[in-house]
Amino acid sequence: MTTPDFAAAFADTRAFVERGIADLCARRPEGTPERLMESMAYSLTAGGKRLRPVLTVQAAALFGMARERSLPMALALEMIHTASLIHDDLPAMDDDVLRRGKPTNHVRYGEAIAILAGDALMAWAFEYPLAELARLAIPSDRICGALLVLANALGPSGICGGQVLDTDDESAIPSDEHPWAVARQKTGVLIRAAVLTGAILAGADGASVDGLARYGDHLGTAFQIEDDILDVTSSPEALGKTPGKDEAQNKRTFVSLFGVDEARALAREESRRAVEALKAVRGDTFFFAALAESLVDRAN
Amino acid sequence: MTTPDFAAAFADTRAFVERGIADLCARRPEGTPERLMESMAYSLTAGGKRLRPVLTVQAAALFGMARERSLPMALALEMIHTASLIHDDLPAMDDDVLRRGKPTNHVRYGEAIAILAGDALMAWAFEYPLAELARLAIPSDRICGALLVLANALGPSGICGGQVLDTDDESAIPSDEHPWAVARQKTGVLIRAAVLTGAILAGADGASVDGLARYGDHLGTAFQIEDDILDVTSSPEALGKTPGKDEAQNKRTFVSLFGVDEARALAREESRRAVEALKAVRGDTFFFAALAESLVDRAN
Repeated sequence: MTTPDFAAAFADTRAFVERGIADLCARRPEGTPERLMESMAYSLTAGGKRLRPVLTVQAAALFGMARERSLPMALALEMIHTASLIHDDLPAMDDDVLRRGKPTNHVRYGEAIAILAGDALMAWAFEYPLAELARLAIPSDRICGALLVLANALGPSGICGGQVLDTDDESAIPSDEHPWAVARQKTGVLIRAAVLTGAILAGADGASVDGLARYGDHLGTAFQIEDDILDVTSSPEALGKTPGKDEAQNKRTFVSLFGVDEARALAREESRRAVEALKAVRGDTFFFAALAESLVDRAN
Repeated sequence: MTTPDFAAAFADTRAFVERGIADLCARRPEGTPERLMESMAYSLTAGGKRLRPVLTVQAAALFGMARERSLPMALALEMIHTASLIHDDLPAMDDDVLRRGKPTNHVRYGEAIAILAGDALMAWAFEYPLAELARLAIPSDRICGALLVLANALGPSGICGGQVLDTDDESAIPSDEHPWAVARQKTGVLIRAAVLTGAILAGADGASVDGLARYGDHLGTAFQIEDDILDVTSSPEALGKTPGKDEAQNKRTFVSLFGVDEARALAREESRRAVEALKAVRGDTFFFAALAESLVDRAN
């Protein structure tokens, strides 16, 4: 066997996910108003790394599940991610006009449609896998287990809570804890859920699930640190969104708290811990280790 | 056996649901920011008829399920309903300041928290029953079946789609179809889901589920017609929200299209059809028939 090629594996899985998203957006569920579907599809097809659905498909594959069978759950992860971005960008929140190089959803469709597109994507993220995974005869207890992880990642103690910490001054926590809490709740929970939903759906053993949970936590934190660094070091073209927003909004990020160099060191440490957590996971975890390493390589 | 007393049965089930809501709001899920929980609890405990959770508990009881076992699903219905009201009231949507006799969520907590409280309630509506119903050892296939109905009721072809039809001028449909479509998608889907989730959770037979689906559709339409009538005939005190909003916003309601008298006749017809649909349902459907009848009695 030749040396596995991480970049090629990522690109291949990403292309598979992209086709899934295109298929999803090509058919409008009966009873869905056209402009609502258009608005949902606008943000779903706006690009991005597709990190979360790629992780879901790869985690399921680690335990022998064909990627066609994990795709509905992978798409659900991207729906939740997209919904949270649409709502984060709203004028009442981060008030951003540019996302993935395009006007944000509310700039294009108006605030009412943007709020409802986010809501509809959140609901679809449960409706779609519940319908499709049952059709694929995936055992119900696995579907329930995976969706519990997904719902928990979105809910009051997940992304929604993280966004409150990040935007609501009255919900402030001490400065040195703040970026870690935001990283965990805004970013880490969904990256962790991406890995776990794939593994649970494919029937992974408990020790592997625990190892992947720790992997997801550390990968998520590394990813958020990277995001904070890119906000100060990137151009709008490279970033696809408005850089410098964190500083303009006085956000307490890893960079504002530790500076760029120290933030890079922290990201490397989180990446190392992510790789270490993989020791508890059965099977060939090359893809996951290479992903964690590629993330911090990019930053240096 | 004495004549069953519908009003007493409704009041008793409603009190049971109210205690469930109070218990739910008394404990904050770990990691949930205090102000987010406060905002969610503010709207959840604001009152209302609790029609949806009462329907869920009663539908499950029809097929022999103890109300403690259907409560998590009943609470999920109220979470979805509350979330949709919070978002409907936002300035970008119906821009309402009064709901259930209290300032609306965004007036009290600001728009950002109100958006996130709605999002968090939508996610919690899946997280909570997934966690609690598994703990109660309800079979996973029933949980999946019930949650699919719930997600479908909220999603792009459900409430979110209905709200787009109701607020987005560019999504207009022909006037004589409009109120029926809005009634089905904004109100009917969740009332239907309330009945169906209870029945599915309790293991109801297919014919009964079909009958209850038709019942829920007609009850939901009758309920929406009533709501349109109350908007023109009620005081703010009796209504608990701002009356006359439909006319002020030029909404195409059953009343604007047919007038109050004809709308009342339509509500009676929908109520009659709802009762008729119960013939297909096994067991003692007295509560459901009496509910449909009480709804139109009130209007006359």
